[in-house]
Amino acid sequence: MNGAQALIRTLVDSGVDVCFSNPGTSEMHFVAALDSVPEMHGVLALFEGVATGAADGYARMADKPAGVLLHLGPGLGNGLANLHNARRAATPVVNIVGDHALDHKRYDAPLESDIDAIASAVSNWQRRSEKTTDVGRDAADAVAAACSPPGGVATLILPADVSWSEGGQAADPVRPQERTPVAEEAVIDAVNALTSGERTVILLGGAATREPALVAASRISAASGAIVLAETFPARITRGAGVPTFDRLGYLAEQVAYQLEGVQHLILAGARSPVSFFAYPGKASDLVPDGCAVHTLAGASEDAAGALERLAEVIGKDAEPVLAAAHRPELPTGPLTAQNWPDVIGALLPENAIVADEANTSGVLIPSATAGSPKHDVLTLTGGAIGYGLPVATGAALACPDRPVLCLQADGSAMYTISALWTHARENLNITTVLLNNSAYAILRLELQRVGAQAGGPRAKDLLDLSRPDLDFVSIAQGMGVPASKATTAEELAEALKAAFAEPGPHLIEAIVPAMIP
Amino acid sequence: MNGAQALIRTLVDSGVDVCFSNPGTSEMHFVAALDSVPEMHGVLALFEGVATGAADGYARMADKPAGVLLHLGPGLGNGLANLHNARRAATPVVNIVGDHALDHKRYDAPLESDIDAIASAVSNWQRRSEKTTDVGRDAADAVAAACSPPGGVATLILPADVSWSEGGQAADPVRPQERTPVAEEAVIDAVNALTSGERTVILLGGAATREPALVAASRISAASGAIVLAETFPARITRGAGVPTFDRLGYLAEQVAYQLEGVQHLILAGARSPVSFFAYPGKASDLVPDGCAVHTLAGASEDAAGALERLAEVIGKDAEPVLAAAHRPELPTGPLTAQNWPDVIGALLPENAIVADEANTSGVLIPSATAGSPKHDVLTLTGGAIGYGLPVATGAALACPDRPVLCLQADGSAMYTISALWTHARENLNITTVLLNNSAYAILRLELQRVGAQAGGPRAKDLLDLSRPDLDFVSIAQGMGVPASKATTAEELAEALKAAFAEPGPHLIEAIVPAMIP
Repeated sequence: MNGAQALIRTLVDSGVDVCFSNPGTSEMHFVAALDSVPEMHGVLALFEGVATGAADGYARMADKPAGVLLHLGPGLGNGLANLHNARRAATPVVNIVGDHALDHKRYDAPLESDIDAIASAVSNWQRRSEKTTDVGRDAADAVAAACSPPGGVATLILPADVSWSEGGQAADPVRPQERTPVAEEAVIDAVNALTSGERTVILLGGAATREPALVAASRISAASGAIVLAETFPARITRGAGVPTFDRLGYLAEQVAYQLEGVQHLILAGARSPVSFFAYPGKASDLVPDGCAVHTLAGASEDAAGALERLAEVIGKDAEPVLAAAHRPELPTGPLTAQNWPDVIGALLPENAIVADEANTSGVLIPSATAGSPKHDVLTLTGGAIGYGLPVATGAALACPDRPVLCLQADGSAMYTISALWTHARENLNITTVLLNNSAYAILRLELQRVGAQAGGPRAKDLLDLSRPDLDFVSIAQGMGVPASKATTAEELAEALKAAFAEPGPHLIEAIVPAMIP
Repeated sequence: MNGAQALIRTLVDSGVDVCFSNPGTSEMHFVAALDSVPEMHGVLALFEGVATGAADGYARMADKPAGVLLHLGPGLGNGLANLHNARRAATPVVNIVGDHALDHKRYDAPLESDIDAIASAVSNWQRRSEKTTDVGRDAADAVAAACSPPGGVATLILPADVSWSEGGQAADPVRPQERTPVAEEAVIDAVNALTSGERTVILLGGAATREPALVAASRISAASGAIVLAETFPARITRGAGVPTFDRLGYLAEQVAYQLEGVQHLILAGARSPVSFFAYPGKASDLVPDGCAVHTLAGASEDAAGALERLAEVIGKDAEPVLAAAHRPELPTGPLTAQNWPDVIGALLPENAIVADEANTSGVLIPSATAGSPKHDVLTLTGGAIGYGLPVATGAALACPDRPVLCLQADGSAMYTISALWTHARENLNITTVLLNNSAYAILRLELQRVGAQAGGPRAKDLLDLSRPDLDFVSIAQGMGVPASKATTAEELAEALKAAFAEPGPHLIEAIVPAMIP
């Protein structure tokens, strides 16, 4: 077998059997090899940022990595933003970047660039395959590195000649690695904080936002009175009826200051200590209140869920978790607003849904509106690199073909990776996209206001405005093969949502929702 | 003034008065400063790859740099592919990347990443502004570096606090730098080759594809019998009636081998020595024939045009250039094919047009069909990173508002930066896009064939197919505010082109042109 065949065979044997691809000439032997290893499902994306975001969404839901196939440095560049988000989500991704043949590199051909430098910004492991005989081993090492807790982006740079030459051999399958158990001292330290009688917050993140960890945290809270919060942007958090529901830490520093006011102990379970998303003049970046002790119960690569269960056993043996009651909001009526559209979602969210949430400012009320909806998983924008929603929904739908996927997608962000809609159609994915069109980069209007009074000029505001012309997402979606409709009232949104949920395959509903800051 | 104001003032004073922007929170003070320096025209792009490609197109036509404003590492990543093309075009670009405040970086906030590493892959100069008092000087140094012959991408990383703090001061305007004159020895060496009686090719590239250099080269050819070729992908080449027309070096190594067969002297005027775009098993990367001597008349940063004129004086004192005769093809009729649509373009190309050519496989006959059309400039894909056509057309139209821009855009490549259409509409740019829809990555079908017989499997071919669903570019364009129509016959294309050229502002014509390899 040639190098490409050995690579794909090794990936498949290790459970990596989906590859999101945007190939070029240097990857043509990988493409050709797909027919000799039919277990690998090659999924075409029309832009690399779709491929990388899809790999992120896939692994968040499948709990195993997908492959990504990118074309040289520029292809990696195009995929970089969503690899950044995957890195922040600690998502395992096997990122294969085709390169020129080894002997061709010294000629500095037009597509030559420093792939290693670009890859270093997102990879927790990277290697260039140097010999065809090593490709299988390199692929196995990449899978192992991607899956090494907490998970990350493993980049394997694959020269074209290493790929096309004969002499490849598949490596042994990679075995899953367990997270490191938490030391008993960390549990005892947390017990001391929780029983101190002082105001204590448990901050859940990473692996501790799945149901068992949420239940354990709720029992700890019931036994100790501690407040439980989830990190601002969880990679995947389970919510809804029958699941403990916790507020997420706020996005703005002011919100966090309010949430953590007077807190004397902050217990981190898989979460990082809170810092401001951005810096602002005269404001602190570290959001831990003065005098608050930070206790790391479990770091990112440790078994945070197990630690919470152990902690619940110790201090909450008989405590019952508080589970969200089944409760749906009333269906609202009238013109859509930022206030009422989330209620339509809450009222109609299907059983066992996956919500890919990039609604941004339009979606601030989604968590409360869906708290009592049927149990669902929410995926959020972990790294702040916008354009993640449509691609992540793509991957989630491929990972869980039996679950409906709801993509809540803001307009400005949508345009970074809009061609994901084509892949929704190509793969006939069961994704309903609600495209929140407020004709603005609304989050930046807020930030411009925060800059100060002198910032109100028309030329500045113009750069945050998405009208002139208005984007018509119904046309755009239809142009990519996704059935689409427009809603300007709550009734229209409800009707379109019901129809979309009732029919398999992709749909897009453009919801005209005025921005909070006009 | 604050740092942002000092930056923009310095740029404007040095002639950089257009900035293609896709800003975020860390760039908000730059955005706010636009109202205090109204000479700066901020142009909004909905994706960073549009902004960077537009800056490339702008500078190719304006012969001075535009600014680009990007948001942190992910924004730079999104813009990287077209910065790669700009680097290969030796286009001056002042690339401003906003970063977190200096003191915020150590907190590793979600959007933190290694901007320096990413920037290093495309920049010929890069610096992080460390103090507000230095921003003006840093901006001037960036402009100077971008404009330093032959031109390149200068990346200035601008921390948010350096931008927002008071104490900025504008730097003195940057003066243009001349290219290094060519030493007389290089001219004499070329004269010796040209008068040797041996088969000689002059390869034009870089600065030597503008009219005066083309005229000089034609005179040299007339006097010496040398064959003149242009590099495969010129940043900007002047063509059409009244201008000497030369073939471009082929894209495939086989074509180049044919063009250079038996050549004993290759004279490089601003061009690099030819290498294969990609490597192939058993084939050479260096395309210079055995026994052929390579003479560098002018390197990339030297005055290639001046050297050619000097050479023409020495050996072609009385030689006349051969200028292309005015001649338009007949308007074809019947269903569109890869063979006939270029004739429609050749027949109707307006006076003084700028052609942004990313037609790829569909456009192989464009050069011959337009050789006798009115004089025009052609911009090509210098770095092989697809998705350059629509953005480059954007920048060219802003640089030359009095010239019609024709964007010849292949379907697959279009989808990487499709949101450029929105900027065409927002800025009401006089761009006519002919979208060549062949429902395939046709170039990759060719490459897959070249891989060998075993590569013909359906799973491989599926990854190169853009149907299921077919992309409807009329819908997509209309969704972004660009009037659009579809043509399936030569008559429809001609009618739509005439209408588009007759009406200012953007238009898109989707031309259904079957792929050469089905």
